[in-house]
Amino acid sequence: MPMRQMFSNPAGRFVDQTLRGVGQVMLQNNPITGFLFLVGIFISDWVSALYAILGTVTATGTALLFGAPRDEVSLGLYGLNGTLTGLGLAVYLQHDMLLLAYTIVASMFVAIVTAAIKDVFGSRCYALTGPFVITTWLFIGGLFTYGRLHAMPALGAPHLTTDVGPSAAAFGFADAVTGILNGPAQVMLQQGVWTGAIFLVALAINSPISCAAAVLGSAIGVGIGWALGAAPSAIREGLYGFNAVLTAIALGGLLFLLHRITVLLAVLAVCVSTVLYGSLVAVLGPAGLPALTAPFVVTTWLCLLARGALPRLRAFSPVEPVTPEGNRMAAQQAASKKGKGEMPCTKR
Amino acid sequence: MPMRQMFSNPAGRFVDQTLRGVGQVMLQNNPITGFLFLVGIFISDWVSALYAILGTVTATGTALLFGAPRDEVSLGLYGLNGTLTGLGLAVYLQHDMLLLAYTIVASMFVAIVTAAIKDVFGSRCYALTGPFVITTWLFIGGLFTYGRLHAMPALGAPHLTTDVGPSAAAFGFADAVTGILNGPAQVMLQQGVWTGAIFLVALAINSPISCAAAVLGSAIGVGIGWALGAAPSAIREGLYGFNAVLTAIALGGLLFLLHRITVLLAVLAVCVSTVLYGSLVAVLGPAGLPALTAPFVVTTWLCLLARGALPRLRAFSPVEPVTPEGNRMAAQQAASKKGKGEMPCTKR
Amino acid sequence: MPMRQMFSNPAGRFVDQTLRGVGQVMLQNNPITGFLFLVGIFISDWVSALYAILGTVTATGTALLFGAPRDEVSLGLYGLNGTLTGLGLAVYLQHDMLLLAYTIVASMFVAIVTAAIKDVFGSRCYALTGPFVITTWLFIGGLFTYGRLHAMPALGAPHLTTDVGPSAAAFGFADAVTGILNGPAQVMLQQGVWTGAIFLVALAINSPISCAAAVLGSAIGVGIGWALGAAPSAIREGLYGFNAVLTAIALGGLLFLLHRITVLLAVLAVCVSTVLYGSLVAVLGPAGLPALTAPFVVTTWLCLLARGALPRLRAFSPVEPVTPEGNRMAAQQAASKKGKGEMPCTKR
Repeated sequence: MPMRQMFSNPAGRFVDQTLRGVGQVMLQNNPITGFLFLVGIFISDWVSALYAILGTVTATGTALLFGAPRDEVSLGLYGLNGTLTGLGLAVYLQHDMLLLAYTIVASMFVAIVTAAIKDVFGSRCYALTGPFVITTWLFIGGLFTYGRLHAMPALGAPHLTTDVGPSAAAFGFADAVTGILNGPAQVMLQQGVWTGAIFLVALAINSPISCAAAVLGSAIGVGIGWALGAAPSAIREGLYGFNAVLTAIALGGLLFLLHRITVLLAVLAVCVSTVLYGSLVAVLGPAGLPALTAPFVVTTWLCLLARGALPRLRAFSPVEPVTPEGNRMAAQQAASKKGKGEMPCTKR
Repeated sequence: MPMRQMFSNPAGRFVDQTLRGVGQVMLQNNPITGFLFLVGIFISDWVSALYAILGTVTATGTALLFGAPRDEVSLGLYGLNGTLTGLGLAVYLQHDMLLLAYTIVASMFVAIVTAAIKDVFGSRCYALTGPFVITTWLFIGGLFTYGRLHAMPALGAPHLTTDVGPSAAAFGFADAVTGILNGPAQVMLQQGVWTGAIFLVALAINSPISCAAAVLGSAIGVGIGWALGAAPSAIREGLYGFNAVLTAIALGGLLFLLHRITVLLAVLAVCVSTVLYGSLVAVLGPAGLPALTAPFVVTTWLCLLARGALPRLRAFSPVEPVTPEGNRMAAQQAASKKGKGEMPCTKR
Repeated sequence: MPMRQMFSNPAGRFVDQTLRGVGQVMLQNNPITGFLFLVGIFISDWVSALYAILGTVTATGTALLFGAPRDEVSLGLYGLNGTLTGLGLAVYLQHDMLLLAYTIVASMFVAIVTAAIKDVFGSRCYALTGPFVITTWLFIGGLFTYGRLHAMPALGAPHLTTDVGPSAAAFGFADAVTGILNGPAQVMLQQGVWTGAIFLVALAINSPISCAAAVLGSAIGVGIGWALGAAPSAIREGLYGFNAVLTAIALGGLLFLLHRITVLLAVLAVCVSTVLYGSLVAVLGPAGLPALTAPFVVTTWLCLLARGALPRLRAFSPVEPVTPEGNRMAAQQAASKKGKGEMPCTKR
């Protein structure tokens, strides 16, 4: 994957890696996108933004310390789960010096988890935000045993919605628009239409197709949540959208080439990941754990692993995913070289 | 695996694949067995039977759409988990138009899960009913968050038995016979001695040994449930039998050649899968999830994966499992060719 | 791994294998260490000690029956999880004839689970005490469904600690020392400073470095538990130490060569495994399951699997782990042969 470095000195390179790490939370290998993501988080909650930076820097540094290949670190692949781990702990726990230390340990560990998942999957699948989900569950669970960790007073509640029955009347057009904009914001565990809007702009800068996928995914999430009778407040807050957004970005032209068969797969996966969110909220509720991005991770992992047994999906896997636009161009070039109009495919 | 197709035209072939899919729920590659399974379900609950057909057709069609190899689809390997997913959703949720759409999405997704598990295991293990368990858990969990999905009023209860203490007195010979016949019926999430009896006949048509294994497995399940002091009503309803039935069929001559060492393994696995049922009911209870066939899947997966490290088990793995009878014949032919009386074994 | 057999006759060899199995609970391939572990358990609770022997013998015998390679059985690798399964069931359930049969079935099954995990990991990772955790969870869960299994009246309670808030005042130097000595004892699910002291002596006989790692690990566990505000009684009973002890032994010179980078990894892993203990106690509480050694297993598996993606960790993996002392010696000899002072590393 070719890539222009913004800086040539080590400090500048580390800043570049950190910003790309933040960008990779939504699978965008672009420091400017990452920077705008941070701006969006700052607007919503500046303490969270500092924890996000702490997590990204710690995870990236730990990966370098234990000898991770420089090209993978440069793509931000070790940073993104640090970003989310920092955000997750900052959002569910109250800030104090202990939480700072706790976050550093968790962010160091998330680099180990990322490496372990990479090794298990090899070239068949990507770690995505799986290391964040595992690490944050492991560290949030301690909240109920350790007396010196304090849960956010108001929070936790929106993530543990209750069955309120069908209530379509209370959900209008303005609620739907709010929910669609809050979807991208909730990927970073934030709430706020301006934050969501900045995230969409940040996506559009790197890939208009990914931006469109995010909007469509968020809309499907809102629609599915409404159709199944989820709590309107939760839909409005974007809770039924953030897994749909990530799934739509990942499967919408990025990890598969755009084609009618992969678009069908993406729509199916977006629907499933939304259903799963409501399901996991209920199933994990008694254990006191939030669903996080587990619905996106589980759904997308299964779709990627299924390529091994389903040749038509394998045929539309890009050689090396860059952006939806980059994938299309590479596929067209390869096709024109062959002069046959065939789509290229990865060989297994 | 040789196989006669009942029909040569595409529609007939699809009917054949669908019926084999239903038959493969109990590892029987036989459309007549599958047809009798459907008859048994119709007798017990015709709505469930329609959902079973819907699930099988959708999963089989999805697999073909995404390019699954025709020979695997023809064996019914993509259909069986669709059958069970349809049954699972029909049994736990109330029928309405929303449930129809929900079941179609779930049955499409179960084909993806099947492909993913096949790819992860390769030739070392089989997916069995694992995709059904995963998908149904993910879709049933939503019951507690989504206001427009409605749980069956009476149901769920039998699957969430409570500790009622030793009560051997209340459990007589008639209860035991009822329990043994209900065991096979519960594989399809049904209850009824006639349904169980039809299932046994359907098994006997394809493989008398599998039928005998099912009866013995169900009896061991009832015995273990009684010895450990499970609720008599649950034993009578076949709930301690259905995982035992599946484990006995799978390990009793089908996935391992019959031999005293593999019979010991099968008996051990049947006991463990029964214990596990009671254990999972308790462990999954707080999360609101039923055990489904997870005890069978976990136990059988572990026994199959153990072959890699235990050469004596590997020695009795048939080259390509067909039926217990077919496996025996293939092994004897291979042995007589060698003229040494040795059992053939798969090479790894 | 060279090894002197104490006995040449079959019975003596089986005794040797059994004692090594007990020793391997703390990764010590030494029958005298194993014997002293049994002595320590006898002092604390002789019924548990008999169940430990029953479990080890059953698991070892089952592995031999199903054809496990003799050299692996001789190292005690199939026995250790039987030891712990016997202890786990004896500690959580009341002794009677039914529990004896239950323990035999569980210990036979743990050999299958061990083989399955070995096959899944291949040379990339070790089973450790993972089979014990899985099997014991599966068999303890039945406690709540089966009326003829009886939970220990007093027990279960210490393993289900509750959030009691910061209480540093109530935790003095004597409490810390008690906690540090109880840490190794809790590896075998026992409590008692003498038992812990005997275990440390047993470790020192086979490897002084492992003994030092156990003491340091236990101390870190006590420190982390105290710093995070865990219940003082639980810290004093060694509950925050036993996962730390196992993680420190495994990563402290045994599965990685001692080096500043691996010492940092070991300290990180010890901290994480301690945090995880408190987390899993809370998360598994509603399901009625204890944490057992799952925190050690999860943390150490992740660190070992991470070697595939982190070359600096791979560089310090011993060719074949023996003891920390043996690893150092082998590495130095290999280095002097090369005459370059380089550390040898396993090739992948």
